[in-house]
Amino acid sequence: MAGLKVYLLKYTPDPELVVAKAAKVCYSRLSGEGLLGEIDKEEVRRLIRMLWNRGHLSVFEHASFTFSISGVSRALTHQLVRHRIASYSQKSQRYVDEQKFEYVVPPSVIKDPDARVRFQALMEEIRACYENLIKAGIAREDARYVLPNACETSIVATFNARSLHNFFRLRCCFKAQWEIRRLAYRMLSQVKRVAPTLFENAGPPCISEGICHEGIHSCGRILRVKIAREGARLERVEGN
Amino acid sequence: MAGLKVYLLKYTPDPELVVAKAAKVCYSRLSGEGLLGEIDKEEVRRLIRMLWNRGHLSVFEHASFTFSISGVSRALTHQLVRHRIASYSQKSQRYVDEQKFEYVVPPSVIKDPDARVRFQALMEEIRACYENLIKAGIAREDARYVLPNACETSIVATFNARSLHNFFRLRCCFKAQWEIRRLAYRMLSQVKRVAPTLFENAGPPCISEGICHEGIHSCGRILRVKIAREGARLERVEGN
Amino acid sequence: MAGLKVYLLKYTPDPELVVAKAAKVCYSRLSGEGLLGEIDKEEVRRLIRMLWNRGHLSVFEHASFTFSISGVSRALTHQLVRHRIASYSQKSQRYVDEQKFEYVVPPSVIKDPDARVRFQALMEEIRACYENLIKAGIAREDARYVLPNACETSIVATFNARSLHNFFRLRCCFKAQWEIRRLAYRMLSQVKRVAPTLFENAGPPCISEGICHEGIHSCGRILRVKIAREGARLERVEGN
Amino acid sequence: MAGLKVYLLKYTPDPELVVAKAAKVCYSRLSGEGLLGEIDKEEVRRLIRMLWNRGHLSVFEHASFTFSISGVSRALTHQLVRHRIASYSQKSQRYVDEQKFEYVVPPSVIKDPDARVRFQALMEEIRACYENLIKAGIAREDARYVLPNACETSIVATFNARSLHNFFRLRCCFKAQWEIRRLAYRMLSQVKRVAPTLFENAGPPCISEGICHEGIHSCGRILRVKIAREGARLERVEGN
Repeated sequence: MAGLKVYLLKYTPDPELVVAKAAKVCYSRLSGEGLLGEIDKEEVRRLIRMLWNRGHLSVFEHASFTFSISGVSRALTHQLVRHRIASYSQKSQRYVDEQKFEYVVPPSVIKDPDARVRFQALMEEIRACYENLIKAGIAREDARYVLPNACETSIVATFNARSLHNFFRLRCCFKAQWEIRRLAYRMLSQVKRVAPTLFENAGPPCISEGICHEGIHSCGRILRVKIAREGARLERVEGN
Repeated sequence: MAGLKVYLLKYTPDPELVVAKAAKVCYSRLSGEGLLGEIDKEEVRRLIRMLWNRGHLSVFEHASFTFSISGVSRALTHQLVRHRIASYSQKSQRYVDEQKFEYVVPPSVIKDPDARVRFQALMEEIRACYENLIKAGIAREDARYVLPNACETSIVATFNARSLHNFFRLRCCFKAQWEIRRLAYRMLSQVKRVAPTLFENAGPPCISEGICHEGIHSCGRILRVKIAREGARLERVEGN
Repeated sequence: MAGLKVYLLKYTPDPELVVAKAAKVCYSRLSGEGLLGEIDKEEVRRLIRMLWNRGHLSVFEHASFTFSISGVSRALTHQLVRHRIASYSQKSQRYVDEQKFEYVVPPSVIKDPDARVRFQALMEEIRACYENLIKAGIAREDARYVLPNACETSIVATFNARSLHNFFRLRCCFKAQWEIRRLAYRMLSQVKRVAPTLFENAGPPCISEGICHEGIHSCGRILRVKIAREGARLERVEGN
Repeated sequence: MAGLKVYLLKYTPDPELVVAKAAKVCYSRLSGEGLLGEIDKEEVRRLIRMLWNRGHLSVFEHASFTFSISGVSRALTHQLVRHRIASYSQKSQRYVDEQKFEYVVPPSVIKDPDARVRFQALMEEIRACYENLIKAGIAREDARYVLPNACETSIVATFNARSLHNFFRLRCCFKAQWEIRRLAYRMLSQVKRVAPTLFENAGPPCISEGICHEGIHSCGRILRVKIAREGARLERVEGN
């Protein structure tokens, strides 16, 4: 297992500034050369928070982030590519030889010595079978049918900031599958470093929206937080 | 191997009529109640062909088609769901038990007795390992890491007619992978039955556009056809 | 003013059944022929509500709805087509003559006799100018530059049920612009007739999610409802 | 008329390098740290051309470009926002006062002194009417119903390189409407400066694909070019 590697390969320069400028176009007469200058950092933050609070998230789409992701299983990427508002380029098992494939072992298997031995022995058998098929002249695109979900893969993924918020909302939740949740938190920590305000509310619905969809499986914490919060808001509204 | 099953579960009623009506909205004063009547079949065909010839394919999007697909490998669905302008609901290996999973064997493996025996023996070992992991208390979402690409899955997929054209263009080409090509032709034959004009030009680029992207790997047939065709068009244009 | 006309031109037959079947594919071994039969109506409702409560809304996308909309202003359609997960075919001002264009008058203008007279007189002048330009040999695509936002247009729009939910969420809110809100409620009432469970929670966030984004401009009602509701949920969770 | 202003506000840094890296992930074992280094410029060009020739354009999506566009008519933006694989933030006529709106005059009107005088006089009347409505207490969102298609607006638009190619393909064609064609060529010249290889084939279908959809309205040039080209390709294929 080579292990999860996540790199923020490239991203829109000054992602928060470009979002703030786009916000200004919507709500003011600013345009043309007027957009080329700088905007004060405090003003950038204020504009981004206004967009978030109004739910005007289309403006977040102007900032885009490209990740190089490797050391993840094909089980993970099959989930990942279901996020359709994003762009993907993935290592092809049709073209790339997999005779020395690495694989991901779930933590629950690692912790159980018996299970782990069986898991690893099976991986060796799969490798041997794949090699045999290739040597027998079977094409890679057909030999790969024996490869496991655990098989490691690499993928380059580009998301805009709005689509990332949706990704974090679904995949940072403790009900998400462990491998993609681990990936989601890695991606989140990397974009937070370069766009802290844009992502300050990113995370599962309990964080981003103050909502929990898990019903009776919820941990309950969110509800207590909300009651307190709403009471305070009600006072503000009625006092308004 | 249960075998590929493709059913056209539901589709926009009168798919060609709805496309023709939408075309009329663009190019005429027709609207409101005026759109509720019938349109002559010959006129429907004429309008659809005009849209195709002009490349005004957004109008094709009003017709949508929902397929139930089963007996396909996870290798196939990992490719399928890369088509992002479509909707998918797939059997979850996180929730559904796979102790009796069926699997797809590539034709090249079936034809080679040695390879086939090896392939099937490995599938049995994977099954045994999966069962063992489940019995040891490993969750389905983790046990599935041993499952192969060959593992059969089911998926419901909805495409609009324009996105289907793109799908057929890429996946009916003889360079596409055999399993998804087989699926594509099955889907094509089903939609042709209910919308023959909408899909009369559907297929690989050599059919749909008179173009081949395979360069020096092309069979050459397309080029001869094109030269003849273009010569005829040139005469028409110059004679115009 | 010909007046707003909204027709549900076509839609996926049995839209709730197809969503329920797709849900079954995700969570059960059901597939192939097993999907062709009927599902009990009560079970359909149960499945749709489960999807809604889990936020598993991608399954709603299999049901698609095509509307014929006319008697709306170009101001409205400029907003409408910003909903990008939908398909549109609109009357073209490049191709269709607008010498007798109808127009939409905002209620606030209708109520003010002076404003109304001015508004209508201007529309007459615009018509006269458009006619003059056409007669002077200016192409329609250029003459239309004088046409007002109020100018009536027709559009065919296809949304899937998930995208419709998003549309209703934004455009049924009392902060949305009056004309598109009126359209949204008409569309909502039409889809509710054919898919009552699929759209039972559709509407502004205060209805669909129990959330309000309008901050200090909110009417406050939503907050009182929520506090009561959350208290009840908390009891259930803690009692669980 | 303030005049068309187009600025490439931000874009993915090293757009061609990021596309080349993503291509390498698909076709090689390169991943993780291996992706962080530089790639020789000649190799970058070779990879981009290979993607183009294979029609593997999803890889182009990793490069994204944000434009500030102003001095364009609402007629233009109503067309522009129909390109759904892009992100837009536009000056709102609901929020921003338009008492001093500028407007776009089509060249065909400028050239005709009579038409021009009429056009400009009408614009003055529209301005006066808008002002009157505002003064009478009509809200901006309703007063704007009198504003013309010619009214200038500003918009920030973000496209990825693949979606841009589609935009240039449709809007650089001499059959496209003059104003959006002018915009398209400005955008094209700006992205060519920062990503010359990525956009070397961008333009109308006759340039990008060697195809013309204009049928008997075509100028015929494209056909002659093609016959010569295909003849040369056929020789290569048959000689292969």
